[in-house]
Amino acid sequence: MLHPHRYFDPDPATRKIALDLYTRVETLPLVCPHGHVDPKLLATNEPFPDPSTLLIVPDHYVTRMLYSQGIRLEQLGIPSLDGTPVETAPRRIWQLFADHFHLYRGTPTGAWLKHEFEGVFGITETLGSANAMAVYDQIEACLRRPEFLPRAMYERFNIAVLCTTDAAGDSLEWHKAMRDEGWGNVKPTFRPDIAVTLSHPSWKAEIDRIGALTGESMTTYASFIKGLEARRAFFKQMGATATDHAVVVPYTERIDDAAAEALYAKALAGTATMADSTQFGAHMLMELARMSVEDGLVMQLHPGSFRNHNTRVFERFGADRGCDIPLATEYTRNLHALLNAYGNEPGFTLVLFTLDETAYSRELAPLAGHYPAVVLGPPWWFHDSIEGMLRFRHMATETAGFYNTAGFNDDTRAFPSIPARHDVARRVDATFLAQLVTRHVIDEADAHAVIVDLSQSLVKKVYRL
Amino acid sequence: MLHPHRYFDPDPATRKIALDLYTRVETLPLVCPHGHVDPKLLATNEPFPDPSTLLIVPDHYVTRMLYSQGIRLEQLGIPSLDGTPVETAPRRIWQLFADHFHLYRGTPTGAWLKHEFEGVFGITETLGSANAMAVYDQIEACLRRPEFLPRAMYERFNIAVLCTTDAAGDSLEWHKAMRDEGWGNVKPTFRPDIAVTLSHPSWKAEIDRIGALTGESMTTYASFIKGLEARRAFFKQMGATATDHAVVVPYTERIDDAAAEALYAKALAGTATMADSTQFGAHMLMELARMSVEDGLVMQLHPGSFRNHNTRVFERFGADRGCDIPLATEYTRNLHALLNAYGNEPGFTLVLFTLDETAYSRELAPLAGHYPAVVLGPPWWFHDSIEGMLRFRHMATETAGFYNTAGFNDDTRAFPSIPARHDVARRVDATFLAQLVTRHVIDEADAHAVIVDLSQSLVKKVYRL
Amino acid sequence: MLHPHRYFDPDPATRKIALDLYTRVETLPLVCPHGHVDPKLLATNEPFPDPSTLLIVPDHYVTRMLYSQGIRLEQLGIPSLDGTPVETAPRRIWQLFADHFHLYRGTPTGAWLKHEFEGVFGITETLGSANAMAVYDQIEACLRRPEFLPRAMYERFNIAVLCTTDAAGDSLEWHKAMRDEGWGNVKPTFRPDIAVTLSHPSWKAEIDRIGALTGESMTTYASFIKGLEARRAFFKQMGATATDHAVVVPYTERIDDAAAEALYAKALAGTATMADSTQFGAHMLMELARMSVEDGLVMQLHPGSFRNHNTRVFERFGADRGCDIPLATEYTRNLHALLNAYGNEPGFTLVLFTLDETAYSRELAPLAGHYPAVVLGPPWWFHDSIEGMLRFRHMATETAGFYNTAGFNDDTRAFPSIPARHDVARRVDATFLAQLVTRHVIDEADAHAVIVDLSQSLVKKVYRL
Repeated sequence: MLHPHRYFDPDPATRKIALDLYTRVETLPLVCPHGHVDPKLLATNEPFPDPSTLLIVPDHYVTRMLYSQGIRLEQLGIPSLDGTPVETAPRRIWQLFADHFHLYRGTPTGAWLKHEFEGVFGITETLGSANAMAVYDQIEACLRRPEFLPRAMYERFNIAVLCTTDAAGDSLEWHKAMRDEGWGNVKPTFRPDIAVTLSHPSWKAEIDRIGALTGESMTTYASFIKGLEARRAFFKQMGATATDHAVVVPYTERIDDAAAEALYAKALAGTATMADSTQFGAHMLMELARMSVEDGLVMQLHPGSFRNHNTRVFERFGADRGCDIPLATEYTRNLHALLNAYGNEPGFTLVLFTLDETAYSRELAPLAGHYPAVVLGPPWWFHDSIEGMLRFRHMATETAGFYNTAGFNDDTRAFPSIPARHDVARRVDATFLAQLVTRHVIDEADAHAVIVDLSQSLVKKVYRL
Repeated sequence: MLHPHRYFDPDPATRKIALDLYTRVETLPLVCPHGHVDPKLLATNEPFPDPSTLLIVPDHYVTRMLYSQGIRLEQLGIPSLDGTPVETAPRRIWQLFADHFHLYRGTPTGAWLKHEFEGVFGITETLGSANAMAVYDQIEACLRRPEFLPRAMYERFNIAVLCTTDAAGDSLEWHKAMRDEGWGNVKPTFRPDIAVTLSHPSWKAEIDRIGALTGESMTTYASFIKGLEARRAFFKQMGATATDHAVVVPYTERIDDAAAEALYAKALAGTATMADSTQFGAHMLMELARMSVEDGLVMQLHPGSFRNHNTRVFERFGADRGCDIPLATEYTRNLHALLNAYGNEPGFTLVLFTLDETAYSRELAPLAGHYPAVVLGPPWWFHDSIEGMLRFRHMATETAGFYNTAGFNDDTRAFPSIPARHDVARRVDATFLAQLVTRHVIDEADAHAVIVDLSQSLVKKVYRL
Repeated sequence: MLHPHRYFDPDPATRKIALDLYTRVETLPLVCPHGHVDPKLLATNEPFPDPSTLLIVPDHYVTRMLYSQGIRLEQLGIPSLDGTPVETAPRRIWQLFADHFHLYRGTPTGAWLKHEFEGVFGITETLGSANAMAVYDQIEACLRRPEFLPRAMYERFNIAVLCTTDAAGDSLEWHKAMRDEGWGNVKPTFRPDIAVTLSHPSWKAEIDRIGALTGESMTTYASFIKGLEARRAFFKQMGATATDHAVVVPYTERIDDAAAEALYAKALAGTATMADSTQFGAHMLMELARMSVEDGLVMQLHPGSFRNHNTRVFERFGADRGCDIPLATEYTRNLHALLNAYGNEPGFTLVLFTLDETAYSRELAPLAGHYPAVVLGPPWWFHDSIEGMLRFRHMATETAGFYNTAGFNDDTRAFPSIPARHDVARRVDATFLAQLVTRHVIDEADAHAVIVDLSQSLVKKVYRL
């Protein structure tokens, strides 16, 4: 099922070189600087409940495709927020999934699932209606064994470090527990999106959490800034090396402290408008960059997702259900203020991501190929795929080079898919480099140096891991 | 001239698989759910007049390339609206075309013409200045024979169904004639663009035609809606399974009935502004989707063409003369209202097209990979080409999968080019699938299933044919 | 080091055809219709001072990559405007460059440098820390020999014609000197960007220069127009066949003469706003097109660069230091006025360039495939690369054809890189055409005709050289 030459260029000469390059990095430890694994999973190390709860229900890549073909989320056991009854029998969910497994042909989800089935659970036939229950039984049997506990998997996966993503107001209790216990290498990432978004429905609650955790009053902008700085310091203490920021538009503009104070006060009074929130957000990106310059946390920026585009699904099932749709995203003008203020700072690193592939060659590679601070993150979300990663290398490399890119990250909440995702990335990079070698753009020695850099050295250097 | 392996990947292993896949679907009947063939052609079944009138004069793909190189449309016999004299000798037009045949090197028009020459008319040498008249003679001789009458061609082309595109105010007399006669399988498609565009110069005339055909007064918005609904019902009765809508920007927003009534009244009074027309159009897309939910007609949306960009050509020669230029097109925000209202409806299908290829991976595949209603139409117009179709598959498949796409449609008014266009699509799909097989993304059995789906099953399912 | 098959497709059949095609054009003379070589270089023919001053310091492609990795421009000997001391020892600059040569892996700069090292200076090993000084010595020794004087290189490079880029207020003294002397074929290009940009800090000075050179008062708009026309006539007399225009947004709109006069008067009075400048610029593109229709100078348009994005670098080191970042660029609406006014004129040629690759298939190829005046320039700046040129051919050819494109131009100020750049272009075109041949889109005879057209005939025809 898993062909050893998969994803390589079919030209025999190119394939041979790709295989050589891939072989060099195939078994290197996995460095995971950005993702959404729940730290509780590894802190508590409880067994995964069943195949459907592990592989289908929480994975919006899996469920969105089924939903797009008319299967209701209720049928897939997605918990509803409004009391709508949903399927509770994991086997019925699994059968439905198996009946529609052909939908994943040619998709990265299909590639990852095949890798998980065979690589993690030893299943070697294609899932379908007929063998659905047999496959379910086999995975279920695995999940009862100690070597399929989360920590056993973490170790078997050869994970060198795993960074999670955590709200500014998160207590990091599970990170602390693991550190106290001395197990693993799991680090938090500081993500203050709610705290800096005045229009977010949970803004006040998040501010209050930060206040409670830091002892700051949070009643003034100055105290708010101190609160954020205190949380950053705590995150660093818990091992964090990076922050992460999701915005719709990566607009940056500094306003003076009095203006920021006024917006903050309006938000506290419940009178801030959407325009106020936008202006405050643009200012806070400047402030967060300023903090990164000072404390050395790498700044990640993930712009351009229209979250919860499908209101009906959002209202019944909440966020992260596959209803986020990308937007065209502009970087050159929007980041002008931030890059002029901080882009030349030696100690500052800004990792840029995009859901708009047109920005690769037009804006992102030119920015990364000039500003010392700017580094390109790997293809994100919909573009974290065989074709998507190839397009990224084809469109970014000539202007940004390899050394202004940040290696791979798996960005996943689907824990058992981590090895599959890194494997795809290594194979695609091997393919791209092999194509450069057979076209005599670089020689084989260079390609061998670069494949190690892309798989390991760059991500460690960029994220200071 | 027509190599049996044309358009396949040159890698021998990939080519062999592509050929196997193509062979499986090569002779399947042609399902044509969207196009611009004049139904009168098949209803009257009169012989085509001459090679130039058949192949050059009406085909703006052919004439635009000649025009771009300084040949005047007058020289090509394009009928003028303003009385400017134009070439009337078909042989002189043909010679000019033959003298410039090298301009089509590397273009889909070149590929289609070669296929038509050899596949339809048995011409096996490349057209050029020297053999122009010999080729003309050969085609002309063909056109005098009964097997080159339109209906004979339709049957020889193995067309299973042919959908035309017809204004809301069209009487459908030719469709009715064919149905009454019991010949063929030619269906109309409901295209109410003029009727819903308050600023269109023919708006009032079209409204009046609808009124006359339906008995509606058309003096109120409510009556206008009833008129449209009555026409849809008649189109369905004449076999229609789909509607089609061309807009510059796919902006959707519902206004209340009173507001719609007010805009309609302004238009009747001749005082509607461009902004009124835009707002009414955005509302009517909502209404047309609502009607589709109710009557089951598949809704097609073709946005993003700046029509008649070249005013000088438009004024002398009218529309559809190769002067339409694409625009960047945004879908995520523009379709938000429509998809939130109707995108989750089980019975509703919205087929999206684009002239902006950047939307494939950024907006269209994510929308199709989530909303049950959304399906991606094939590459449209300038992108209905070997490279264009490959790009579409490369950019859309990983996120939308194969099963949220709608197979192929030829979208042509050039009747004899229909087999060539379907053949190119089947070859390109075979190539793409073969590349997935040799890269071990999918296996050969899956590829064989998918090629049949792409050539036949999906288009029939999506368009309910 | 320089493999004879470099950049060709690795498929053996395709590679063989590519090699045949390339061999046919490999040694054709270089036609250079657009670039930034300083005419003084060839007029005075003084020896190049040293390897670093020749190859590193003036080449922002080289220095931007080093800067992006934290090397300061001061360390690279870039002259500062503010008195900041900078490195003065060419050998220290060279060593730093050599230490970081791996950064150019996979970049066009890397490909060009390798070609220059081997093709111009006979260096056959890869540059690195260890051999830095040996390589320096070898180049330095070359530069002392008469066959490495600028004119000797010009002749050895087999340059048929070299067009420079010159401000409207340039005296063209060096062009005149060469013409008087009867040496070479170096032509100026009329670039009035400063003169038509009311907001440019040097606008008044440039206007005054034009006034002084033409005897026009420049105190009225009418006199300003006369001044520009007089300069164009002088440029033509000095051999110019083209003009060039860089704008941020290619917006075009004619205003009446009185309105233009009013804006011009405001600028003279120092009260013109940015909006005034924008409006005047949009009008002047119309006027410059009108002048081209009248005097036959080919009009080149280079839009979409956000110049001097990094203010800190700009203030210390000035323009053209690698801090220009592309912007998304719209052509369909922006050029509507200009193309409607002049796009059908038989004698007019408008060569369009872009930094936004999304425009190739969406806007530029459709415009070029229709308007007689529009021709597509080759991939520009960041996209003048192996991948970039392939993408251009893949995205533009099917709609624009080959014959609405303008061949290659090297657009360089790096004189010794000229042969390398043309060689890459010829190899890429050979690769693209070979791919069409092995896919049976065109036959080999057609490909042989097209490769000559792309390398030579088209550029001479389009630029009237």
